[in-house]
Amino acid sequence: MQRKIKIAIFGGSGYGGSELLRILLFHLNAEIVLVTANEHAGKSVGEVHRNLFGLTDLKFEKSPEDLAELENIDVAFFALPHGQALSLIQQLPKNLKVIDLSGDFRINDGDVFREFYKLEHTATDLQKEFVYGLTETNREAITQAQYIANPGCFATATLLALAPMVKSGLLTGKIIVDAKTGSSGSGAKAAANTHHPQRMNSFYAYKPFQHQHVPEIEQHLKAVGAFENNFVFMTHSLPVSRGIFASCYLETTVNLTGEDLKNLYELFYKDSFFVRVVDGSPDINWVKTTNFCDIAAHSNPNKQIVVFSAIDNLVKGAAGQAVQNMNLMFGLDEKTGLVFTGSNP
Amino acid sequence: MQRKIKIAIFGGSGYGGSELLRILLFHLNAEIVLVTANEHAGKSVGEVHRNLFGLTDLKFEKSPEDLAELENIDVAFFALPHGQALSLIQQLPKNLKVIDLSGDFRINDGDVFREFYKLEHTATDLQKEFVYGLTETNREAITQAQYIANPGCFATATLLALAPMVKSGLLTGKIIVDAKTGSSGSGAKAAANTHHPQRMNSFYAYKPFQHQHVPEIEQHLKAVGAFENNFVFMTHSLPVSRGIFASCYLETTVNLTGEDLKNLYELFYKDSFFVRVVDGSPDINWVKTTNFCDIAAHSNPNKQIVVFSAIDNLVKGAAGQAVQNMNLMFGLDEKTGLVFTGSNP
Amino acid sequence: MQRKIKIAIFGGSGYGGSELLRILLFHLNAEIVLVTANEHAGKSVGEVHRNLFGLTDLKFEKSPEDLAELENIDVAFFALPHGQALSLIQQLPKNLKVIDLSGDFRINDGDVFREFYKLEHTATDLQKEFVYGLTETNREAITQAQYIANPGCFATATLLALAPMVKSGLLTGKIIVDAKTGSSGSGAKAAANTHHPQRMNSFYAYKPFQHQHVPEIEQHLKAVGAFENNFVFMTHSLPVSRGIFASCYLETTVNLTGEDLKNLYELFYKDSFFVRVVDGSPDINWVKTTNFCDIAAHSNPNKQIVVFSAIDNLVKGAAGQAVQNMNLMFGLDEKTGLVFTGSNP
Amino acid sequence: MQRKIKIAIFGGSGYGGSELLRILLFHLNAEIVLVTANEHAGKSVGEVHRNLFGLTDLKFEKSPEDLAELENIDVAFFALPHGQALSLIQQLPKNLKVIDLSGDFRINDGDVFREFYKLEHTATDLQKEFVYGLTETNREAITQAQYIANPGCFATATLLALAPMVKSGLLTGKIIVDAKTGSSGSGAKAAANTHHPQRMNSFYAYKPFQHQHVPEIEQHLKAVGAFENNFVFMTHSLPVSRGIFASCYLETTVNLTGEDLKNLYELFYKDSFFVRVVDGSPDINWVKTTNFCDIAAHSNPNKQIVVFSAIDNLVKGAAGQAVQNMNLMFGLDEKTGLVFTGSNP
Repeated sequence: MQRKIKIAIFGGSGYGGSELLRILLFHLNAEIVLVTANEHAGKSVGEVHRNLFGLTDLKFEKSPEDLAELENIDVAFFALPHGQALSLIQQLPKNLKVIDLSGDFRINDGDVFREFYKLEHTATDLQKEFVYGLTETNREAITQAQYIANPGCFATATLLALAPMVKSGLLTGKIIVDAKTGSSGSGAKAAANTHHPQRMNSFYAYKPFQHQHVPEIEQHLKAVGAFENNFVFMTHSLPVSRGIFASCYLETTVNLTGEDLKNLYELFYKDSFFVRVVDGSPDINWVKTTNFCDIAAHSNPNKQIVVFSAIDNLVKGAAGQAVQNMNLMFGLDEKTGLVFTGSNP
Repeated sequence: MQRKIKIAIFGGSGYGGSELLRILLFHLNAEIVLVTANEHAGKSVGEVHRNLFGLTDLKFEKSPEDLAELENIDVAFFALPHGQALSLIQQLPKNLKVIDLSGDFRINDGDVFREFYKLEHTATDLQKEFVYGLTETNREAITQAQYIANPGCFATATLLALAPMVKSGLLTGKIIVDAKTGSSGSGAKAAANTHHPQRMNSFYAYKPFQHQHVPEIEQHLKAVGAFENNFVFMTHSLPVSRGIFASCYLETTVNLTGEDLKNLYELFYKDSFFVRVVDGSPDINWVKTTNFCDIAAHSNPNKQIVVFSAIDNLVKGAAGQAVQNMNLMFGLDEKTGLVFTGSNP
Repeated sequence: MQRKIKIAIFGGSGYGGSELLRILLFHLNAEIVLVTANEHAGKSVGEVHRNLFGLTDLKFEKSPEDLAELENIDVAFFALPHGQALSLIQQLPKNLKVIDLSGDFRINDGDVFREFYKLEHTATDLQKEFVYGLTETNREAITQAQYIANPGCFATATLLALAPMVKSGLLTGKIIVDAKTGSSGSGAKAAANTHHPQRMNSFYAYKPFQHQHVPEIEQHLKAVGAFENNFVFMTHSLPVSRGIFASCYLETTVNLTGEDLKNLYELFYKDSFFVRVVDGSPDINWVKTTNFCDIAAHSNPNKQIVVFSAIDNLVKGAAGQAVQNMNLMFGLDEKTGLVFTGSNP
Repeated sequence: MQRKIKIAIFGGSGYGGSELLRILLFHLNAEIVLVTANEHAGKSVGEVHRNLFGLTDLKFEKSPEDLAELENIDVAFFALPHGQALSLIQQLPKNLKVIDLSGDFRINDGDVFREFYKLEHTATDLQKEFVYGLTETNREAITQAQYIANPGCFATATLLALAPMVKSGLLTGKIIVDAKTGSSGSGAKAAANTHHPQRMNSFYAYKPFQHQHVPEIEQHLKAVGAFENNFVFMTHSLPVSRGIFASCYLETTVNLTGEDLKNLYELFYKDSFFVRVVDGSPDINWVKTTNFCDIAAHSNPNKQIVVFSAIDNLVKGAAGQAVQNMNLMFGLDEKTGLVFTGSNP
């Protein structure tokens, strides 16, 4: 077997880090050399993520003072709050590959970044070296990349639903995306909006017209095809732990049947193992804990189209896609270590 | 105190009937004289609906053979599967008031009814005597009505969200409604789509472009104002028991601020106790088990509007609105017996 | 109508306060004159508890500096964290009635209080003036009381299940109570153990052999009958919002049939509207949001008994029972304002 | 690599079969040759279990008419309703290994079987050839076995919690087990007790003193050590999909500290990878979808002991343990194909 990829995970105590650990501990070509978590430094990984108890001897460490000495690492994953990658990356050895799960390097435009993230972008020079890590639309660039900006969870579900239609050139009019996410999308820290007694019976919208994934989605759609459509994106909170479901409302210049749509999507994703074109509707139940994105598309006789997509926000929407990108960056089959099933009930 | 309204409930074992019982047992001007449930005939109501155990001595009865003799009844509620009201109503005494919670008399057009309900309408002559029971937009007609077609749950949430905008005359372009419902909307009978082990982690769409509430909504919007918009309506299943949430995407001919929208909605509903215009987003948690409809509206600078509405599908979307209509039909304050709160957690 | 009872609620922003508000706003003999919530002072009640939006004009106030001047109040409810009532009560006018929902005055013994609450009891002289507010076993004393120590939620479910057997004198051997609570029992503040992404799939035990309701239960059982049994009490967390379910394992000196047990419980509770003796098993679903306690008892031929009880932790386990006690203290029927149903689904 | 084990699964459409498929499709030493499901015969596995869509080309088949010709199969799993294995097994080739997930061959005594399963045992001659498949206590016999009676889910959680104490010889007095299960334990068919609108807010007990796992547990405890204790076992329903949690109340002849108990359990399970002795309490959240059983034990100064255990009812309680047993029967490491993690949120 080839030499294992040596990995550092920065930010291992949140849900993104937890999922990276869950996947990479069983990835045959991977070896986790370092996992940081300042608050939990010194504790064993299995003590903090009790699903991993008995499965690893790893301990959380403080982030090293001198990152330039991380010579024995091949790739670093950043699973940190927005803003922290901006400075961290500048301290790393120059040859290190990086996959950033935060939003720090997803947006090309510093002004837009400031508007949506309320932060000054302090590494704009590095921005152009980042490749956007939506694997299915960007495979070639990812294979060559040193730095990956891993897509947001909402952006992943939305872009995978929209890309084939944008690419087709058949769209007209505005695009409306009604997106819903599970509570794990808010992270591992307890907060009012994830307080169980209320969340379990809740469904509500948040950040109307203001979600930070909007510029990320628009920017990448323009990379996929001619996209100048009016774009409305709305986020809602679901009372489940895991899952994103996007309902995308489109209009086409010609009438497309359900069969036409199915063919179009199957063709677009024919080499993409992790996108499954399904009949009827996808269901977050069938993709939970997996790296799959399930998609279905329907039309009516007025050229109105709806495309539904479902992913696990923490896997295809974060850690799973990050590993999929790592696989490509190191010449592995993109499926390596990611072909596991979700469960039925 | 005035003489109590004498009530018959046809179909008391389903969730609609269960909620009618829950409300009417504590309605000071109401007396339930008869409640039918063929399967459970002879059982006490509290044995079947164990939330009512100890609160009533009522027993379920078989539907009487000769309905024409129901002389001592003032009003009959039909909480039966679609289709049954069509024949039942023709057997009742002519002077009886009727509130039908099914879809049998909501649609004016027999052909449309057949298409969406897969049933022949066998009482088209009676159709014109039915008043559509969306209380907030139809109060005067309801007050005079003998027969009420009580709105569907999705239709209620959608129409209350859209009516003020349609009435305003400011809409242009297409209207898209992304609606989500809890599992109790599928009724009290166990079925594959409400099987707990899968439903608790599910979110999915169903009946794309085909839901039977579409013609009901379009027909009533035309009654509210000039409505010729392209209308897309999509239904989804939420992993909660109770609640409907509708996200309605609109476009206006002029720019409206959030403040404009709030004023417009508050004015439209100024005499409607059960519609609450809220900030941010409504949440099904805050309306569960109540007769409230919570609504919020937002805009962006491109004249795009989103209106969110939340109701309890079994109360404002069924039994509660039915009682609200009964109140008006009998000269009572529409709030009578309906001012109870939901709970916080 | 008689003069309304004038009420102050200290601590209106938590779940106990929220439920007191929900009940008392619709209590025909009650008038809420003051409701405090330091953090939310100045906000309207309906803004904080959005289930109450549109139903009251009350505003939260800071706790008054000079409590001795609360002359126009008949009764104060304390819905505060443990420990605060100890000093508050000493500042109130002497004639004021008080119902304390905390654990501050439930335990007679200062040493035991210190051990379980980790607090020094600074009002031991007042302790003897408190009556333990388990309505069904203590009605007469409550009617005469000025100060009520309202029982804990676990204690209520357990005591109502055990009292008839302890009173019967038929018990022998040890008593084991396996109790489970919903997440709202942890209060309105977000915390790690009520973080939705994990809690929704969780069931676990906590505080083994150490729960603070143990001495409260033992003390009160001794007041009910001869009780010297070895007592094991274990608490667990359920992934629902509301509800407590206690499974109580007992042993009797003689063989009792299921019928014997049913008779024994029905006789004991024949004048207690809010205790329902049911067949099979109670279910927290049937008591949620209500003041009912549902109980069932079974036996096997080896003189082993199991008694199941189910309550809503925030109603019969807190605010509902508090109002039930208030009713008795003011000469009202104990059911006043408390006869509302839960819902079926 | 050695020749793969050729496998037939009888009953692939239920949850037991679904989980066998999920595990065995990724088991490097396993090849599924046949999977039956009469109702779904002809459909692809991924169409019925949509979590497996895209991961297998297997189709469901009708059960072959002539089972004696299944020459190319090494082992058959029965994931069928109780009673069907009784006749099926007699039709199989004599050399075939069999792992039966039903209760048909768990109980030695025909009379007891009839009492608890309401069925006549028609293969009592084969009964003695069955080895009870609780891997951790029966490893050697399993290794040599041709036929395995795979333990029930409740029995697995209970026996793993009790076995070390029974073996220790330190128990006295009665044993009480308060056990709780998720809704998937009721199977894949929709039924009233798993109807989502009610189940999601439910917790209740069922079959008091009558569960069919009682004789299975007692029989096996007698095989583990001297067991003549009075045994009370009570089953309850949890509003989650997956998981069993058992709270076991014991009494010892000597005082044992928490440390003593931990040592005793760790020693007993030192060679058992899938039993994890944890601090505090296990939580079904940490074992869901895995083959782990998490256990914790506590004591008080009165020689009262509580042991908590948590498993996934469909994995360690069914399909996972079945594969663990298969591994042993074919000379593989028992962990093969079973070392996957659950997820944190």
